[in-house]
Amino acid sequence: MNLPVDTKARILHVARDLFHGRSYADVGIKEICDLARVQKGSFYHFFPSKQDLAMAVIDDMADDWAHGFVAEAFDRDLPPLERLDYLIDAAYYWQKAAKDLEGRMPGCLFGNLALEVSTRDEVLRAKLNAVFAKASSRFRETLDEAIEQGLIAPLDAEATAQAMLAYLEGMILLAKTRNDPEVIRELGPAIKTVRIELAANN
Amino acid sequence: MNLPVDTKARILHVARDLFHGRSYADVGIKEICDLARVQKGSFYHFFPSKQDLAMAVIDDMADDWAHGFVAEAFDRDLPPLERLDYLIDAAYYWQKAAKDLEGRMPGCLFGNLALEVSTRDEVLRAKLNAVFAKASSRFRETLDEAIEQGLIAPLDAEATAQAMLAYLEGMILLAKTRNDPEVIRELGPAIKTVRIELAANN
Repeated sequence: MNLPVDTKARILHVARDLFHGRSYADVGIKEICDLARVQKGSFYHFFPSKQDLAMAVIDDMADDWAHGFVAEAFDRDLPPLERLDYLIDAAYYWQKAAKDLEGRMPGCLFGNLALEVSTRDEVLRAKLNAVFAKASSRFRETLDEAIEQGLIAPLDAEATAQAMLAYLEGMILLAKTRNDPEVIRELGPAIKTVRIELAANN
Repeated sequence: MNLPVDTKARILHVARDLFHGRSYADVGIKEICDLARVQKGSFYHFFPSKQDLAMAVIDDMADDWAHGFVAEAFDRDLPPLERLDYLIDAAYYWQKAAKDLEGRMPGCLFGNLALEVSTRDEVLRAKLNAVFAKASSRFRETLDEAIEQGLIAPLDAEATAQAMLAYLEGMILLAKTRNDPEVIRELGPAIKTVRIELAANN
């Protein structure tokens, strides 16, 4: 690993890789400290608990996403429906690169953590929920624009946005279980078919 | 917990509850033995490793599913598209009952395990893959019948079956992260909108 010079950044970098590549419970603080080449005292100075570390890892990843491929995919200069194609492509190439490097498809860090910790850590669950809510709002804006431009028939944009996010996460889940990024390429385009109609009284 | 009399069944019962309610890595063999009231020697007689136990838990759950609500949902006497409604309803009531009892929505045991262990246990990954392949084949049969009966336009039934399974898993993932089974009721019906067209050369 090519590690950052800054101690805190180094811990974050190592923890994110390990949580993503394996799981939250499977990775211990000692292992993180060893790989990041920091003392435990230094670790606890930055992160009083493993939960604090996980919160920072989620923020760090969400921030990278928000300024990285999510920003590119949901670029307002792209026609709305092409943003969805871009997102699927980006997810595919990202997972493929990770698999080519490590031999294993890591999936979505947020989805992984959500299924692992939601029943036993309310703080992390709330954090992951906020990440998903933000992701869903990107789909929502895209759908609103697509309707406005007459590209798709009116629908329940809020519910459909969540349904599209669900589809994205579920598709990555199946791809990870098959350890095959091609699943994303095969199933991905169907994200545009998911739709929830407006309730009759709206 | 109302525990079975048979020792092996008791271990399985406890392990399944704990793996489902928390996670695989978070639950130790000692805790399982304590709750199941068995000695470690007896545990290892039935399950030489934690991986063997997980394999048995997956089989046990898949078997319950196959003879329980999956059998009911995919009953060939039901019109094909109603089977999907039944499946969503069953998933909703199951998750709601679990939440009412424990305060937490446990999600899908297979999805949970798949995201937790797929990068680090090839044996469990292959097992979970087989469970998903079987689930997908139920969707496949349903779609084939729906097309045959003229209820839906022809489509790529194999790919659409996988896409529907992906949607189901992703929707349960989001519901678990919100700790809210109502998400399943809200987003569930859209499973019928997911579709992948036949390739032009088919």
